Amino acid sequence: MKGFGMLSIDQAGWIEKERPECGALDAIIRPTVLAPCSSDNHLLHGGFGDRKDLILGHEAVGEIVEVGNLVKNFKIGDIVVVPCTTPNWLAENVQGEYNTHDEGLMKSFKFLGSKDGTFAEYFHVNQADANLVLLPENVLPEAALMTVDMMSTGFHGVENANVRFGDKVVVIGIGPVGLMAVAGAKLNGAGQLIAIGTRPNCVKIAKEYGATDIVSYKDGDIVKQVLELTKGGADSVIIAGGNGDILRQAVEMTVPGGYISNVNFFDGQDVLSMPTLSWGLGMSNKTIRGGFCPGGALRIRKMLHMVQHGRVDTTKLITHRYNGFSKIEDAFYLMDQKPKDLIKPIVFID
Amino acid sequence: MKGFGMLSIDQAGWIEKERPECGALDAIIRPTVLAPCSSDNHLLHGGFGDRKDLILGHEAVGEIVEVGNLVKNFKIGDIVVVPCTTPNWLAENVQGEYNTHDEGLMKSFKFLGSKDGTFAEYFHVNQADANLVLLPENVLPEAALMTVDMMSTGFHGVENANVRFGDKVVVIGIGPVGLMAVAGAKLNGAGQLIAIGTRPNCVKIAKEYGATDIVSYKDGDIVKQVLELTKGGADSVIIAGGNGDILRQAVEMTVPGGYISNVNFFDGQDVLSMPTLSWGLGMSNKTIRGGFCPGGALRIRKMLHMVQHGRVDTTKLITHRYNGFSKIEDAFYLMDQKPKDLIKPIVFID
Amino acid sequence: MKGFGMLSIDQAGWIEKERPECGALDAIIRPTVLAPCSSDNHLLHGGFGDRKDLILGHEAVGEIVEVGNLVKNFKIGDIVVVPCTTPNWLAENVQGEYNTHDEGLMKSFKFLGSKDGTFAEYFHVNQADANLVLLPENVLPEAALMTVDMMSTGFHGVENANVRFGDKVVVIGIGPVGLMAVAGAKLNGAGQLIAIGTRPNCVKIAKEYGATDIVSYKDGDIVKQVLELTKGGADSVIIAGGNGDILRQAVEMTVPGGYISNVNFFDGQDVLSMPTLSWGLGMSNKTIRGGFCPGGALRIRKMLHMVQHGRVDTTKLITHRYNGFSKIEDAFYLMDQKPKDLIKPIVFID
Amino acid sequence: MKGFGMLSIDQAGWIEKERPECGALDAIIRPTVLAPCSSDNHLLHGGFGDRKDLILGHEAVGEIVEVGNLVKNFKIGDIVVVPCTTPNWLAENVQGEYNTHDEGLMKSFKFLGSKDGTFAEYFHVNQADANLVLLPENVLPEAALMTVDMMSTGFHGVENANVRFGDKVVVIGIGPVGLMAVAGAKLNGAGQLIAIGTRPNCVKIAKEYGATDIVSYKDGDIVKQVLELTKGGADSVIIAGGNGDILRQAVEMTVPGGYISNVNFFDGQDVLSMPTLSWGLGMSNKTIRGGFCPGGALRIRKMLHMVQHGRVDTTKLITHRYNGFSKIEDAFYLMDQKPKDLIKPIVFID
Repeated sequence: MKGFGMLSIDQAGWIEKERPECGALDAIIRPTVLAPCSSDNHLLHGGFGDRKDLILGHEAVGEIVEVGNLVKNFKIGDIVVVPCTTPNWLAENVQGEYNTHDEGLMKSFKFLGSKDGTFAEYFHVNQADANLVLLPENVLPEAALMTVDMMSTGFHGVENANVRFGDKVVVIGIGPVGLMAVAGAKLNGAGQLIAIGTRPNCVKIAKEYGATDIVSYKDGDIVKQVLELTKGGADSVIIAGGNGDILRQAVEMTVPGGYISNVNFFDGQDVLSMPTLSWGLGMSNKTIRGGFCPGGALRIRKMLHMVQHGRVDTTKLITHRYNGFSKIEDAFYLMDQKPKDLIKPIVFID
Repeated sequence: MKGFGMLSIDQAGWIEKERPECGALDAIIRPTVLAPCSSDNHLLHGGFGDRKDLILGHEAVGEIVEVGNLVKNFKIGDIVVVPCTTPNWLAENVQGEYNTHDEGLMKSFKFLGSKDGTFAEYFHVNQADANLVLLPENVLPEAALMTVDMMSTGFHGVENANVRFGDKVVVIGIGPVGLMAVAGAKLNGAGQLIAIGTRPNCVKIAKEYGATDIVSYKDGDIVKQVLELTKGGADSVIIAGGNGDILRQAVEMTVPGGYISNVNFFDGQDVLSMPTLSWGLGMSNKTIRGGFCPGGALRIRKMLHMVQHGRVDTTKLITHRYNGFSKIEDAFYLMDQKPKDLIKPIVFID
Repeated sequence: MKGFGMLSIDQAGWIEKERPECGALDAIIRPTVLAPCSSDNHLLHGGFGDRKDLILGHEAVGEIVEVGNLVKNFKIGDIVVVPCTTPNWLAENVQGEYNTHDEGLMKSFKFLGSKDGTFAEYFHVNQADANLVLLPENVLPEAALMTVDMMSTGFHGVENANVRFGDKVVVIGIGPVGLMAVAGAKLNGAGQLIAIGTRPNCVKIAKEYGATDIVSYKDGDIVKQVLELTKGGADSVIIAGGNGDILRQAVEMTVPGGYISNVNFFDGQDVLSMPTLSWGLGMSNKTIRGGFCPGGALRIRKMLHMVQHGRVDTTKLITHRYNGFSKIEDAFYLMDQKPKDLIKPIVFID
Repeated sequence: MKGFGMLSIDQAGWIEKERPECGALDAIIRPTVLAPCSSDNHLLHGGFGDRKDLILGHEAVGEIVEVGNLVKNFKIGDIVVVPCTTPNWLAENVQGEYNTHDEGLMKSFKFLGSKDGTFAEYFHVNQADANLVLLPENVLPEAALMTVDMMSTGFHGVENANVRFGDKVVVIGIGPVGLMAVAGAKLNGAGQLIAIGTRPNCVKIAKEYGATDIVSYKDGDIVKQVLELTKGGADSVIIAGGNGDILRQAVEMTVPGGYISNVNFFDGQDVLSMPTLSWGLGMSNKTIRGGFCPGGALRIRKMLHMVQHGRVDTTKLITHRYNGFSKIEDAFYLMDQKPKDLIKPIVFID
């Protein structure tokens, strides 16, 4: 079969491989719609070290073409939504508070460097019963596609930010994950909701998703701007973009007792610096949490519930639509170049 | 001064009294807009025992006419929103998880039988700095009025129901508190949101506030209807109406591990019965919580934030508007008779 | 193989059966030490309906004699601790807050009526990797045996009771689960800790586990006694025994804002009654939770950690020790008769 | 009156001042036993900027010599325990999750630079009813004295560390606050409990309080030692000592999904650095919290409950005992010099 992926660091291209084998608990899927994600580019450029001839991609909706003999709930022909995080539910770690670190840090995210991804004619999903969800009848495949990483990650940023009714919330960065965090913060009780970003189409969608104020880096120090708009600081700050200085800024714009929640993917070589003064000499009761996209069937089913019932229109994120398997390449390079009007490109396979 | 209140059980009327005295930490308020609440009628009809010549009312926005010498943040002439629950913040109990039981069960609700209420030319508020909020510039007085009990109580019902993103939520009873619970559940992440009630104007507002399904008592057993609509049970059930059988029904329509949250005012003579089978022999991990309107300045400020930022339009609750101090009587009797189209009546004093 | 179990309602005896088959993810265990539990007697006497020729028992430590071909972490000859609750970790429900209701109410408790239990020469455990724990080197088998149900259940009662440092805690009923709740409450921060019970050896152990006061039903109304000892009510009440009136009593002895946690197994025909007055007309912010023994490998590993590090001596619960497979019968009948000095009997198989 | 304090940065000495005035809600206390704390030295050496002729001290038990006319629960002659954190309970911020930042960061800690402290013949306490606790009959004054800062702070470190039954917990630094964190971690459910420190008498007490392992900086990299002892990382790490590198070390020794809780007082000029790799690129679900001593009457009453019921013997912390008001000076300088065998010195005034 064919797949598009990483030949080696910084080298992408088409790869010819054997179709993956299906374990007893697993499924083989033919993607029908998929999307590249900046984590794929991160991987290509060496963010997780070198990989040879590895198929990229971790966001997909598709059709089941094979199921293992121990799978109970799915059959060939089912159209399914595939979480980007597909834990090994028999690992002891997932019995704790988070399901994203089954056999170590982020190991539940199998498509990100551990095995071939979704940019292929066929791909493999472990533990189908626990990790797949039937596409609901009244949900568009592309709307469902946006839940598997963008929405689950953005909403996790909100969950970790401990938003309570009427809180003042800031979202730093309004790419697709940040925009989902804006939508999620509104749907979790935010009063004032400040989005920090500059790109016009993102600003427009941020407002549609519930942002009450927009702050731009171009208008000066963002900490100062937030302190003014909030009259003293935000209750919760969600980091969905930024570099090594962003933690300091987030802590500084948060009130004592507030929450800083990170869903940004830092580079391994970054060093986050935090003057202790910003953190109240370590005694400000400001909580800092960094989280990663929760997965599994229940999580994505809940996200789909919100789409089904009109709580959020995830298709607003989709700025570019391609048709045909071969267009995965174009979509991927678009993601790599990040033109100003890009939020998410998607590819319909058939 | 004049006030409208309870002469004795079941006897309401106008009362002539001395204007209340202002303690060092307190304020005296002249109401500018107020609303009766069914708890006032509950009190009149003996729900809390007999009272003689007690002025009723606990929902008000008004103007400060006097402040104690230790008050720092308010001055005469300020227009303020008055929480119905005004804790004694120097009582040790409020240092715990809830602020509604300062010196015993529901004792923070001072207007409900402990002292004269808001249906008067002037009324007293304890600890002004900790219990009053300036009316925000961009909020209508009548919109603010709906936050002090209806919204704070309804949203507390949601808080106790532990709603998580994508959950299936039921609200039983769609009077004003139930309607606020519907609005709050949507703003806390509900996916499917079932409102149980029958009155046409309430049904209409429930849908506008985010209900995805309406269930009527008239169409048969509500437990059965909810189990069908949810395909197996709700994650959270909020009780905002009903009688002694309602706890059983709520427990039965909840999935194992789910939450039942009560904000209904039961009569003291009611007995709630629960077959243990419904509660999984006591082992179903279903949590039952009954809560009471949280108060104080921070709580109401947070509610006002949500109104200010357009998260909820509380004025939808207002079905009847009166003008003039003397109309308190009409508004009160209207509440007592509960005509079919009534949700909340309000009275503008000047 | 032989097993001891339920021939039909109220009829117990030895049963000859085929040794269970081992699925790909599963294990077959030969018990080396086991214990009857009052739930076994409950089952025998029809608590879950009729069953024919079903082997009883759900508490065991044993030796693995067979493992499925997909099992990674265990091999023949391993000595393992077996949780009484062994969820199907591929069921979507366990991805939520509780793992005890995998495919419905209490369905994760497979040994309780769904399949043959541990009172046999061999028994079956589903999903060995996720449900078994190696017996730690420095833990006695009989000490480990007490963790799989007694300790996990009693400690769950504490978890649901939301004990905070310095709280006043009551444990109603000091059979083995109640005693574990006493030990757990101390190890979760209880200050005053009142145990309600009468049997002398249980009272003695309750004190050793941390009870500061003992209340007896024989000395009058327990609500009144607790209100006096606590000077106004307990912060948390854990129900580990009692009948239909116990919920009312527990609610009455709890302060507003407090927690009532049930781990008692009620009969299906019981009706719990609660005068609304006790529950503050439904507005006292008293939380009522009923929970069931959490299972899986991580849970039992954590319980074993506490035993390993000397936090609790679970062997205090063991009052009767038998040797030999055939003595299962004696131990079971002893549990059925409940002599005054019985807490837990155990049987060493070899 | 006389007091011992800060003349200016690095200059300590005796000061003659007017006895403080008592507000309507307040009390004036004559200390009967008090203790210096390293925060006093921190203040003296400029940690909070310059102060002139400011009396130091914030830990005291004493006798009430005057009460304001609005105080209800206390009278002259009462012996009271004084929290080091005495919030203004009429400030809106204390209505949120924490009470330590009443009118800004750490502002509830009034004795630390905002007003004269407890090293005086008389000192002032705001809002007596909400901030004082009667010394319980069966608690030694010096045992109570250790609760007002050491125990409340150390136990807060545990609360923020989210310890669950059987967790692996590390406490970094075993001065008096760290030792209290060790005691608190055991009483909150820790299984393995590793204390990091070197001083022999502290190590001895750490073991008595429940430490299962001792790690010394002298034996090499503490991260490596903890990873070995825990076989892969701790569930919770409590920082009660250390410098700018300690946050990185704490994060590195914590498992994904774990908690890092700080109660260490960093210097304002410190910069905490954290390689993003340690923090799982920001996605490890490791939560970092820094907290400050909670205060008020309820908090200290709860701490005292634990002392009363024998849960913890706080007097183990006391290594040096002085008699007489003039000995405050000696005790203070001892704290400044920190001899090897010092944990806490105390001074009995009469």
